[in-house]
Amino acid sequence: MDKGNLLYAQSGGVTAVINATACAVIQTCQRRKIKVYAARNGILGALREELFDVGKEDRGAIAALRYTPGGAFGSCRFKLKSLEADRAHYERLIAVLRAHDIRYFLYNGGNDSADTSLKITQIAQALNYPLHVIGVPKTVDNDLPLTDSCPGFGSVAKYTAVSVLEASLDVAAMCESSTKVFVMEVMGRHAGWIAAAAGLAGKRADDPPHIILFPEVPFDEARFLARVQETVQRVGYCTVVVSEGLKNAEGKFLAEAGTSDAFGHTQLGGVGPLIAQLVKARLGYKFHWAVPDYLQRSARHLASKSDAEQAYAVGKAAVEYALAGDNGVMPIIQRTSTTPFKWKIVKAPIDKIANIEKKLPPNFISPDGFSITPAARRYFEPLIRGEDAPPYDKISGLPKYATLKRKLLKKKLPAYSIADK
Amino acid sequence: MDKGNLLYAQSGGVTAVINATACAVIQTCQRRKIKVYAARNGILGALREELFDVGKEDRGAIAALRYTPGGAFGSCRFKLKSLEADRAHYERLIAVLRAHDIRYFLYNGGNDSADTSLKITQIAQALNYPLHVIGVPKTVDNDLPLTDSCPGFGSVAKYTAVSVLEASLDVAAMCESSTKVFVMEVMGRHAGWIAAAAGLAGKRADDPPHIILFPEVPFDEARFLARVQETVQRVGYCTVVVSEGLKNAEGKFLAEAGTSDAFGHTQLGGVGPLIAQLVKARLGYKFHWAVPDYLQRSARHLASKSDAEQAYAVGKAAVEYALAGDNGVMPIIQRTSTTPFKWKIVKAPIDKIANIEKKLPPNFISPDGFSITPAARRYFEPLIRGEDAPPYDKISGLPKYATLKRKLLKKKLPAYSIADK
Repeated sequence: MDKGNLLYAQSGGVTAVINATACAVIQTCQRRKIKVYAARNGILGALREELFDVGKEDRGAIAALRYTPGGAFGSCRFKLKSLEADRAHYERLIAVLRAHDIRYFLYNGGNDSADTSLKITQIAQALNYPLHVIGVPKTVDNDLPLTDSCPGFGSVAKYTAVSVLEASLDVAAMCESSTKVFVMEVMGRHAGWIAAAAGLAGKRADDPPHIILFPEVPFDEARFLARVQETVQRVGYCTVVVSEGLKNAEGKFLAEAGTSDAFGHTQLGGVGPLIAQLVKARLGYKFHWAVPDYLQRSARHLASKSDAEQAYAVGKAAVEYALAGDNGVMPIIQRTSTTPFKWKIVKAPIDKIANIEKKLPPNFISPDGFSITPAARRYFEPLIRGEDAPPYDKISGLPKYATLKRKLLKKKLPAYSIADK
Repeated sequence: MDKGNLLYAQSGGVTAVINATACAVIQTCQRRKIKVYAARNGILGALREELFDVGKEDRGAIAALRYTPGGAFGSCRFKLKSLEADRAHYERLIAVLRAHDIRYFLYNGGNDSADTSLKITQIAQALNYPLHVIGVPKTVDNDLPLTDSCPGFGSVAKYTAVSVLEASLDVAAMCESSTKVFVMEVMGRHAGWIAAAAGLAGKRADDPPHIILFPEVPFDEARFLARVQETVQRVGYCTVVVSEGLKNAEGKFLAEAGTSDAFGHTQLGGVGPLIAQLVKARLGYKFHWAVPDYLQRSARHLASKSDAEQAYAVGKAAVEYALAGDNGVMPIIQRTSTTPFKWKIVKAPIDKIANIEKKLPPNFISPDGFSITPAARRYFEPLIRGEDAPPYDKISGLPKYATLKRKLLKKKLPAYSIADK
């Protein structure tokens, strides 16, 4: 086994369970007597030599990471470009790793992070620095290939399904004399994974959600309005779930197509109110809309137990792969049985994951384009199964989320300036 | 004791725990061998003689009401006007009650419902019909006088505080290279009770939420923007909670003041995105916004235990008061101690409650107008204390909310037409 230290970094949008992965990485390192550091704000901290000395944290605080949402060490949207374009950054990264005798680098993120992991493997070889790079999967977008699902997705899926169920009970109770159409906007700019998961809320005909607007199905205003009207007439109300990535027939995001806010800006997010107002304008129904935004991906209080367990498992496996000498791989989830739900962690080469987006399978969307199929339900249901509530403070009534000291290691190298974008 | 049956009806916006009150009413009646009916869609069902035969429901389904959000029997926004203006409606109501030998009428709602209860008491006396009318408190707005709090409020308060805490952990993790300002819009058109409860999320200086925009404090754009900028510079990000009822210096709702949607309509709701876009336009910060809307008042999965217990207690007391011969009263919550939190149910005359709105006390808002005071924290904290998670289905991963048969009683009177508004 190589000697040396391990560096863990979080990248891209955070989730309700990415800290469960961090917890697993740290606890596994400590069990294996490997010194573990965490980069501040992802790759930015690695480049700036801003490394948290995780050994200085209380064991209890590390254990509490398992049920704390957000990214405890900070994440970033900063992307390294190609080896050629960003050669100086890659060389600096190796210099930082060398200065702190870091021989294992675990990068916890989605598609872009897998690509960065791959490039770091290449530069380490080119510079003859002995390094084991392991990608660790995470994304609410659920769009990494090979793995059955992505840690973070199951919890946003559960939040979304439960929220649709609860809000629809509210709407159903009031629909005769109040709101008839309720629109909820969910995340998923490129694929309808989260929108599809909302479909789990209902099982019987006429259960909500009555309409799901997927980014995979071009928006057809007339068909949509006809379906809303039929639903209100038959059921009394209509719950609509719309993906932020909904596009029109020309492939343009609806949220950007010819409408901008009061100040003349466009920013994705806002297709929910747009759809609700369209219903009001064309059909006259009283409406309400909700955009839970970050609430959906940070709702650790409603995490899926499957998801939390898988997030921990990939962190543990990542350390084990690194210590066993692997390089350029990612621990992924392999479903071995749906009923009963069984899965295991297996190893996948990271070059088979980087830059490849897993799309929502066409057979998950019903022929009319407004709901999910039994095949989708079979896939999704185990992912939202089980609860894993955080402990709550008896006085404040709030979850007892981790608070870390976040002590930085003493720097050994000259300062390195890199812009935050 | 009078002989006769009891009618229960739900009125106004529903909550995460109004069905806990319904459960208490039904279980208490059954224990006391009183036949209990529930009106379909509140007072509308009482007028139309649409009465659910609650005795036909399974005991298990009734028990499950305790943890089911929404309004199981339907609610309405229909308001009875004065005795003079709506005399025909009031007389019809008494005719329906007489036809089904209903001697106890329990009306579960907020301010308007208390007023209706009062008028029903008066008309019953005028028509010499022996009736016991009990108002039962419920409103997420927390604006009924005399009672320490209103059932429904504690749960929306807990949801709001937890959501602000969780989403802010997400924002904090990403703020260097992504979102710097997060805006969450909360309910409360007339008073800032829910907005204030968001303040429970943070305890130390610089904890989120950093800014609360109350309806009680006229919006001062320059002061607000300066505070946002200071906060981002000092903390790295800024979480803003804004009440849907925020007004400008002229007393106009900000959500309506000179801005309308893409279709030219105005509807309250949308001040969150407005504030976020203002920050972007004036300060250039990357932003996200969330509007949980109905999610906040239906989030039974995150109910406050105090709130759920109080909702049950007022339902039980309402039946007991009715059977003991009371008329024109409401069971309210009296706080007898804050530390430890103790409360009891006491009786209040409904004419001291109807049409009176309890405002957020001025000493709950900090001198700068952007946060809450220790006095507010002392009041709010016990209300969000404790958890009371619903049971979850082991296969679907969803809460096992009640499904009722909702069998209507056979009608005895001619049809009565009343418009749904």
